Amino acid sequence: MIKPGASLLLAHRIKDRPILLIGGGAVASSRLYFLLESDAHITIVSPKLDPTISARLETHAHQITWIKRKYIGVEEEQAKGEIELTKYHMVMTAIDDNPLSKSICLECRAKGVLVNIADVPPLCDFYFAAQFRRGPLQVMLSTGGMGPRIGALVRDRVEKVLPDNLEDAINGVGELRKDLRKRAPGVGGALGQKRMDWMKSISETWSLEQLEGLNEAEVRSKVLDKGWEKEKVVKPREVGLRGRCPLRDVPQEWVLPSGILLGATLGSLVTAFLLRRR
Amino acid sequence: MIKPGASLLLAHRIKDRPILLIGGGAVASSRLYFLLESDAHITIVSPKLDPTISARLETHAHQITWIKRKYIGVEEEQAKGEIELTKYHMVMTAIDDNPLSKSICLECRAKGVLVNIADVPPLCDFYFAAQFRRGPLQVMLSTGGMGPRIGALVRDRVEKVLPDNLEDAINGVGELRKDLRKRAPGVGGALGQKRMDWMKSISETWSLEQLEGLNEAEVRSKVLDKGWEKEKVVKPREVGLRGRCPLRDVPQEWVLPSGILLGATLGSLVTAFLLRRR
Repeated sequence: MIKPGASLLLAHRIKDRPILLIGGGAVASSRLYFLLESDAHITIVSPKLDPTISARLETHAHQITWIKRKYIGVEEEQAKGEIELTKYHMVMTAIDDNPLSKSICLECRAKGVLVNIADVPPLCDFYFAAQFRRGPLQVMLSTGGMGPRIGALVRDRVEKVLPDNLEDAINGVGELRKDLRKRAPGVGGALGQKRMDWMKSISETWSLEQLEGLNEAEVRSKVLDKGWEKEKVVKPREVGLRGRCPLRDVPQEWVLPSGILLGATLGSLVTAFLLRRR
Repeated sequence: MIKPGASLLLAHRIKDRPILLIGGGAVASSRLYFLLESDAHITIVSPKLDPTISARLETHAHQITWIKRKYIGVEEEQAKGEIELTKYHMVMTAIDDNPLSKSICLECRAKGVLVNIADVPPLCDFYFAAQFRRGPLQVMLSTGGMGPRIGALVRDRVEKVLPDNLEDAINGVGELRKDLRKRAPGVGGALGQKRMDWMKSISETWSLEQLEGLNEAEVRSKVLDKGWEKEKVVKPREVGLRGRCPLRDVPQEWVLPSGILLGATLGSLVTAFLLRRR
């Protein structure tokens, strides 16, 4: 069933790509943060800079170009020739000049350049949404403009319930994939498919706690010997990892009843023992 | 602290935007699904179609154009003039012809068109990542190429732990925002800021369970009367909503100890009572 009205969620790889950021305030600073983490090259156009942006200019000089003046206007800039919108992979503005923002948006759209005008949803080809990053994992939570705050609220909830060892599990799987590529090199075709299917079988049958064990080279080597080489799904026990820890995998709704039962048993035994002794 | 190596996560609004999808197999079908949910207009180029794509062609005829032939090659297509890459907002390929895929990617990059070549990360400006949608909430989980399967694994975990009433809470906040806009209309400036701050104060101090109550028009009206009009953060109790249900908000790590304590108390009382009676 297709439910319309969604956003298209995409993870962009923008290492060394030129991004134009017009504005130098708090919103521009937030944009800059995400762009720097993504290894982009950012050109900032603003007569003044927020202190956090100034600080980044020091620490990330090679990634930022600062054009220390106001962005005058689409036609004026074209005449001047210093800032050409079409040269950029994406254009983002965070300024308090609505007519100027709109003209930048229209020009970008006419030229096919992706554009985001902060705080004006109809002028945005894309939105930034609530997000967090934990090691190699990045999570974005979008409410499609229903409210950025509730996105952040849900983010905080989700972040709290994610298992602590998630990062290690993801890294473990990544290491196993690398080792597998060394053992069975080559791109695409039947081998690529076989590698993918085998990796999938591991990710699907092992728990996160067990995947964490893959960070040890010795374990990975055993998994490849006993699993990949013999074309089978190897079980964690077979490579010397403890079995699935049952307590960690108990569904949340069973935790309270189990606790009460355990407590009741212990409590009555202890009470019975104490009362009998007297 | 800037940690490099991230992807830039973006939520694209692509209603009615033209997207070119080259290929007609299972991967193309998955792309089509997300593009249809985002209300895009998709041009599919493929001599044959996966049955699910054929079915969508029936149900979503107005959103799909099918060019029933092979994409020949970048130069050949330019000569032919039927498919012009630069006319599209994004180009995605899911075909088994690596040299052709690469030439499409290079042409798109030269012309500044966003491109995704399925299964060939270096030729992708963006990735699709594990994701799920629950009502107005869309969540994407990206592992930055560390392994699509583990992204899916984490997605399943996250989906399981999200509160059931999340959708209703998000809708409730959305409804309150709409009512507030009616009561205090106008765009931007000091009023816009005040509206945003007040909405933020509600989202931050109410629990998800309480926000769910905002789906009732009467509750919303009271919240606006007692909160917005008096420039204060209204508490759920003040508008006739039950207070925060303490059990629901207990941190997960306290549930088991609380259960054991409760069980032990009950168990020893009952045991003591029974033994005394004898």
